[in-house]
Amino acid sequence: MKERKTDLTGGLVCPVPITNYDKIVMAHGGGGTLSHQLIQKMFLPEFDNELLQAEQDGAVYEVGGIRFAFSTDSYVVKPIFFPGGDIGELAVYGTVNDLAVCGADPQFLSAGFIIEEGFSMEELWKIVQSMKKAADRAGIKIVTGDTKVVDHGSGDKIFINTSGVGKIRDRVNLSWERIETGDKIILNGKIAEHGIAILSVREEFQFETDIRSDSAPLNDLIGKLLDVCPDVHMMRDPTRGGISSALNEIAMKSGMGIRLEESRIPVGEGINAICEILGLDPLYIANEGKVLVFTSAADAPGVLEAMKKHPLGQDSVIIGEVVADHPGRVVMKTLIGSNRVVDMLSGEQLPRIC
Amino acid sequence: MKERKTDLTGGLVCPVPITNYDKIVMAHGGGGTLSHQLIQKMFLPEFDNELLQAEQDGAVYEVGGIRFAFSTDSYVVKPIFFPGGDIGELAVYGTVNDLAVCGADPQFLSAGFIIEEGFSMEELWKIVQSMKKAADRAGIKIVTGDTKVVDHGSGDKIFINTSGVGKIRDRVNLSWERIETGDKIILNGKIAEHGIAILSVREEFQFETDIRSDSAPLNDLIGKLLDVCPDVHMMRDPTRGGISSALNEIAMKSGMGIRLEESRIPVGEGINAICEILGLDPLYIANEGKVLVFTSAADAPGVLEAMKKHPLGQDSVIIGEVVADHPGRVVMKTLIGSNRVVDMLSGEQLPRIC
Repeated sequence: MKERKTDLTGGLVCPVPITNYDKIVMAHGGGGTLSHQLIQKMFLPEFDNELLQAEQDGAVYEVGGIRFAFSTDSYVVKPIFFPGGDIGELAVYGTVNDLAVCGADPQFLSAGFIIEEGFSMEELWKIVQSMKKAADRAGIKIVTGDTKVVDHGSGDKIFINTSGVGKIRDRVNLSWERIETGDKIILNGKIAEHGIAILSVREEFQFETDIRSDSAPLNDLIGKLLDVCPDVHMMRDPTRGGISSALNEIAMKSGMGIRLEESRIPVGEGINAICEILGLDPLYIANEGKVLVFTSAADAPGVLEAMKKHPLGQDSVIIGEVVADHPGRVVMKTLIGSNRVVDMLSGEQLPRIC
Repeated sequence: MKERKTDLTGGLVCPVPITNYDKIVMAHGGGGTLSHQLIQKMFLPEFDNELLQAEQDGAVYEVGGIRFAFSTDSYVVKPIFFPGGDIGELAVYGTVNDLAVCGADPQFLSAGFIIEEGFSMEELWKIVQSMKKAADRAGIKIVTGDTKVVDHGSGDKIFINTSGVGKIRDRVNLSWERIETGDKIILNGKIAEHGIAILSVREEFQFETDIRSDSAPLNDLIGKLLDVCPDVHMMRDPTRGGISSALNEIAMKSGMGIRLEESRIPVGEGINAICEILGLDPLYIANEGKVLVFTSAADAPGVLEAMKKHPLGQDSVIIGEVVADHPGRVVMKTLIGSNRVVDMLSGEQLPRIC
């Protein structure tokens, strides 16, 4: 049979909107500047619609007078089993948390598996059981799924996509647009644990540490704080790119300034030590059980109290506030009293962290 | 730093339910017997809930008195550009069709990209544009997304997951349980085009043919036939594993017998010729723009007429019926008048077809 010569890609309809990279690099998936560029220059303008433009962790839409959140994430974490969790649990909690920070009670989850030929049936079974346990803990049902197998060498053990839907709570309206000068920013505990836990078992790093991923479902914690204060302005779970990238995105999108107090940001001793040795900044390291809550100064004490009562919020603390100065930027008052601009993650620090 | 010796996978909670394979093989993703086994023995029992047990192409749930369908699929088709389509278009239409055969009007779509480091930005842009065009044609909005990048050699160019939600039409109730003896089975056109189009550009086969994928959004066709007859009993889009696998699943799940008339099953001349040369059976080859409609004998003429009026249903035909004989099995009256049992795909014929 003859070789086909046709150009199957056809001609391009219009020029590629990203001109500084002709190939995808790891940082396009890192949650920092290049991820942001890909989304802002390619996906958003092309898929253009008002729901996508809202750029929440999930889309918010209304059907028959009921508001829903809908979110998706693919998980490619490496290794698939790590201290404090595994890819299955992460895939459930990650999407649960994306729905929760939209103000939704997560209800239904889909699971799409892309498995590499030759992957261990025993490990798959372990992951499936872990997903079930995580779904039960988060109170969400896995209701639909799909399994694809790719030939050996065309994948890496297993990738999992989860998408989820949930009904948004009455009286809750979370949006960039609601952020105001003077809003307090509350964080529910110590940062960078997920990223460092993954790093500790990477082939190229492997070191002994007790640090475990903070991977956890945040919907119960968030539900409790919304019970106390449905008027919270905005929430975000700072995963890839750490709290710095999440806060920078919020600052850019809202056009507000954010001021952090370094002395108030909870970082474990072990994390600090490892970050110093490896030259990493915990502000840029991924979390999987943390939430940033923006609320009015008047509501902040009540929200903080509600969060501290929850097992996942005992270390909650106000880490900063929204300011009129330096619009669109995040600035941190450091331990020695100077001010430091906290940029979005520029390269990628830790690939395949989630 | 010391090497970590801990067993991160922990102990298994209970024995692996699939004992005849200790590793995943390509056929576990082929849509045939092994896919079926993985779903039936591992996923369904563990994720156990009534929505998943319904085993539709999507989950059907009710919130505030409104019924919704929710579906997910990951696309790993190889090559990513093929005659008649590409992975982006396929990812949109595939999930649109899964929602449509649940009786839903597809409304919102998520897009999760897993991209291999080094993938061409130009090809990504081509795919993104193709998704937008497909979404517009199907009348669905891409409202949320995610991008992950995996290192070179850990993926294969690009995998796309799409999940979708849509409101189920009033008065429409599609389910295995509604299939009855005497129901007619209508198909909207020629089979096996998608699979053969992919095959024609695979490195190991490459042959010259005009055959193009039938990849198309079926929601408009299905909407039109449901306008005429909302009482249709069941629908299914026969993708991986072809019409034989789809019909076998329906026969097994419903416990009914299915009788096909080979003379009525539309197969293009080119497809027949290629299948004969390669020793393939078109009944087992994937479609991406076909639907199997189960409807009462009384309603069948009206449904058929409505389908024939639509551009995607001009070749619609009744290919068989539901019978009381041979419960749970599919039997075909062949061209020479004998009866042949049509089994579910047992190995996998064409990997990575969608």
